[in-house]
Amino acid sequence: MASAEFWYEFASTYSYPAALRVAALADQRGVSLIWRPFLLGPIFMAQGWRDSPFNVYPAKGRYMWRDLERTCGAMGVPLKRPEPFPQPSLLAARVALTLEGDERSDFSRRVFLAEFGQGLPIGDRASLGALLAACGVDPTEAFDRAESAANKALLKAECARAAEIGVVGAPCVVTEDGEVFWGNDRLEQGLDWAAGAGLRRNS
Amino acid sequence: MASAEFWYEFASTYSYPAALRVAALADQRGVSLIWRPFLLGPIFMAQGWRDSPFNVYPAKGRYMWRDLERTCGAMGVPLKRPEPFPQPSLLAARVALTLEGDERSDFSRRVFLAEFGQGLPIGDRASLGALLAACGVDPTEAFDRAESAANKALLKAECARAAEIGVVGAPCVVTEDGEVFWGNDRLEQGLDWAAGAGLRRNS
Repeated sequence: MASAEFWYEFASTYSYPAALRVAALADQRGVSLIWRPFLLGPIFMAQGWRDSPFNVYPAKGRYMWRDLERTCGAMGVPLKRPEPFPQPSLLAARVALTLEGDERSDFSRRVFLAEFGQGLPIGDRASLGALLAACGVDPTEAFDRAESAANKALLKAECARAAEIGVVGAPCVVTEDGEVFWGNDRLEQGLDWAAGAGLRRNS
Repeated sequence: MASAEFWYEFASTYSYPAALRVAALADQRGVSLIWRPFLLGPIFMAQGWRDSPFNVYPAKGRYMWRDLERTCGAMGVPLKRPEPFPQPSLLAARVALTLEGDERSDFSRRVFLAEFGQGLPIGDRASLGALLAACGVDPTEAFDRAESAANKALLKAECARAAEIGVVGAPCVVTEDGEVFWGNDRLEQGLDWAAGAGLRRNS
C-alpha cells in the first residue's frame, strides 16, 4: 500500500481545512497516511521571521484570512479567528506526538476545530485536557508523556527533519519518493502522486 | 457576460503555466477575461524584498522550482530556467500594456514561452522585437508607444491599482465583486467565482 506523510502545524491556518479533508482524500486513493505534527517556528526563524508571515506581511495576512473564509465556506465548516493569532502550539504538538494512529488524527482534528472553528485558545493544559478527554485519553498521563525529555527531543528532531526534507510551510504532503506538496490546495495532487509512487514501486 | 481580470507579471514563474491555461478555463465558464500585466517589484519593495522572494528565501525557491517542474510536466509544456532569474520585465509589461485584446494575450504567452519554456532573455528590444513580429505587430511602433510618458504612467497606475485591490503576488484572478484568487492553482476557483458573480448580478 502506498503511504504519504501529512505534515501539519497546529498554529497554521491552512492546516485546519487540510486536517479535516486529508483522511478522506487519502482513503479514496488507497494511500496510508502518517500524521506528522511539527512546529513552523524554527523554519520561520531561519528565514528571519519572529512571527507568522501573515502578521509580518499584513497584505498577505488580509489575503489569507479572506481566502480561508472562502475555503471554509465552500467546505461548510465554521471559521473563527483565535486571539492572539498565532496560538502557541508547542504543547499541542508535543501531545499529538505521544498519541498513535487514530488517536493522533482524532485529537489533531479536535484541536483545529476548537482553535479555528470556535476561536478557542489551544495553548494550555486546560484547553487541551478537555480535548484529550473527548478522545478518551487520560489528560494527566498524556501531559506527563508530552513533557518528558524524550518527547521534547523527539519533537525537535521532527522539526529538523521537516526542514531537511524541504517542508517550507504547512500543511505539506510528502510522498515516499520525497516529493513535497505544500498547501491545503495541493493535498489532492500530493496524494495522487503518492498513489502513483506506490504503483511504480509495486510494478 | 461575467468577466474577470487576470493579473500577471512577466518575471513570475507561476504566471507562466497560468498564462497558458487561463484563456481556455475562462472560455469554459463563459467568463470574459481582461489581461492585466503589472510589476511585482513595487509590491515586493513594500514588503522589504529587493529581489524575488524565491531568491531571498532559498528554501522556498528550491520548493518552487521543483513544484513548477511538476506542474509543467503534468501540462506537457517545457520548462527552462532563465538566467538571471528573475528576468527584467519592465519593457515587456510596458509593451503588453500598449496591445489590445488578442494581441495582448498572444504576445504575453509568447513572452512566457520564450522565457520559461526556452530559458531566453526577455528584457531587451531584440528579444521582444522578434516576439512582437511573430504576433504581426510592428516592433518599432510598439516600443515607441511602450516608452511614451503616458504609457509609463499607465503602468505605474496599474501597479498601484494591483496593490490597492489586494493583489499580493502573481498570477491573480480578480472578480467583478472584488475577490482575489492568488496562484496558478487557484485559476479554476477564481473563474468559478467570477462565473457565479455574473449569475448573481443577472438574476
